[in-house]
Amino acid sequence: MAAVFDRIAILGAGLVGGSIARAALESGAAAAVMLYDTDASVRRRARELNLGEVSDAVADAVRDADLVVLAVPVGAMAAALRTAAPALKRGAIVSDVGSVKQAVVEALEPLLPAHAYLIPGHPIAGTERSGPDAGFATLFHNRWHILTPIADARPEYAAAVTRLEEFWRALGANVERMDAAHHDVVLAVTSHLPHLIAFNIVAMAEDLESVTESEVVKYSASGFRDFTRIAASDPTMWRDVFLNNKDAVLEVLGRFSEDLAALQRAIRWSEGDALYALFERARRMRREVIEAGQDTAAPNFGRDTSQ
Amino acid sequence: MAAVFDRIAILGAGLVGGSIARAALESGAAAAVMLYDTDASVRRRARELNLGEVSDAVADAVRDADLVVLAVPVGAMAAALRTAAPALKRGAIVSDVGSVKQAVVEALEPLLPAHAYLIPGHPIAGTERSGPDAGFATLFHNRWHILTPIADARPEYAAAVTRLEEFWRALGANVERMDAAHHDVVLAVTSHLPHLIAFNIVAMAEDLESVTESEVVKYSASGFRDFTRIAASDPTMWRDVFLNNKDAVLEVLGRFSEDLAALQRAIRWSEGDALYALFERARRMRREVIEAGQDTAAPNFGRDTSQ
Repeated sequence: MAAVFDRIAILGAGLVGGSIARAALESGAAAAVMLYDTDASVRRRARELNLGEVSDAVADAVRDADLVVLAVPVGAMAAALRTAAPALKRGAIVSDVGSVKQAVVEALEPLLPAHAYLIPGHPIAGTERSGPDAGFATLFHNRWHILTPIADARPEYAAAVTRLEEFWRALGANVERMDAAHHDVVLAVTSHLPHLIAFNIVAMAEDLESVTESEVVKYSASGFRDFTRIAASDPTMWRDVFLNNKDAVLEVLGRFSEDLAALQRAIRWSEGDALYALFERARRMRREVIEAGQDTAAPNFGRDTSQ
Repeated sequence: MAAVFDRIAILGAGLVGGSIARAALESGAAAAVMLYDTDASVRRRARELNLGEVSDAVADAVRDADLVVLAVPVGAMAAALRTAAPALKRGAIVSDVGSVKQAVVEALEPLLPAHAYLIPGHPIAGTERSGPDAGFATLFHNRWHILTPIADARPEYAAAVTRLEEFWRALGANVERMDAAHHDVVLAVTSHLPHLIAFNIVAMAEDLESVTESEVVKYSASGFRDFTRIAASDPTMWRDVFLNNKDAVLEVLGRFSEDLAALQRAIRWSEGDALYALFERARRMRREVIEAGQDTAAPNFGRDTSQ
């Protein structure tokens, strides 16, 4: 494949940053990949893994890059761009992979030099692992990548968005454009609330007096274990998500709690028909997720069948 | 292997009943497996699948069985035993696979002939699928099977419990004995509450006005899809679980909601340190589940890595 970008720089060599590096090199979407991480041990590990050319200074990584991807927790985006900004080349595209978009735009826009283009983005892909060893080149295959372009009327900006779309498609992703505010509501439902609930039930289970932690672990195959996977995700990343998407998260959380209270009442009053109707309805969504290619059709995600 | 039982009868040929039939025949734990299901189309399918010898009448299935397993939803247990009771042979063991144990004991004990032994049980294994096609012989491998023996002082009863344990071990399970009341609290935490939450979030997401159902499906790989798997479980089975384990479910649900309210407040007041501490704590439980052999260590349950 002809490279979409001659040189890209990725700031942050964790699960997502490391996966972009691998995918860009394997696909040939970038001719050269520069990497930087604030953590010296992560830089060392990224070098051992040959994730790209690892720099010990942000400016060296960023200097000649056509695309700079900020792959750090949402709360660290501003600091990353602040150190990178003076070294950005003319016409450089700055993008990110944050799970929240409005707060990122607000944080980054004021720091961007006039000769660069800001195109926020969010790959809807990941695992519960973190760090440079967690990444892999196929992470974005058949997953959606959402771009939330800002209000930038320059014709070069539109061309830059098209080029960034091309890059993500080269990494195997499907690309969608969306308004940043709408992104934050959609992701509050599909990602932030599910993670919050998983963190909550796992922490709650640890605190119970009537059931020991070892019993919870032992009998976790009855449903609980699924929640422990999501709750194993990076705590720094998730703290920043909740601090930076407060309004949308509190809104959907309010709806969730309201519906849960109604369900609680249906149980207390033995309303079997209401419970059945709700469970039956919830069942349909699974088929749609599988038909959309967003999950495996194998029972138990295929993990248990040594058949 | 020498058969633990010459002949067993399974009432209910769904996921669990069908899996017991397959596992018992493959392992040789039973020399003969009789099957019955109230649904004629399920009986037909069970015959096609060669799950055992399928009878069109309960009495024929049960007549000479040393072990009768009730593999029906909790709310259908009493009706199943009522039709089976007159045909039970002297010394027959009656067991079940219900996800709730106190309510099952209360429903079954009065219906049991004096010449039979009631030993309630619950295999901590399953998938989101249901019906005769869903079962497989390895479903119980390395999973726990909980027995909740009743207060029966006959020496033959103790021998029957030991024999039933032997049967489940032959199917690949680890066996544990537990008090029925404690079972119901443990499972409320590890299974009933997780399912309730999953049903609730999936139904809630369907009802939103601000986010379309197709958006939820499209971006479900960010966390939501995991919940759709659990929410695809059999609605009849789950309705019966919640109607029959009301006290324990309402108790843990109260704890869950209380903790969620505290988390909501921490988000509203931007208490980043509190959020981080809770997320960090929840992360540990995942390692314990994997170390206990109750889940795969592969990221994303191994479903996405075509690496």
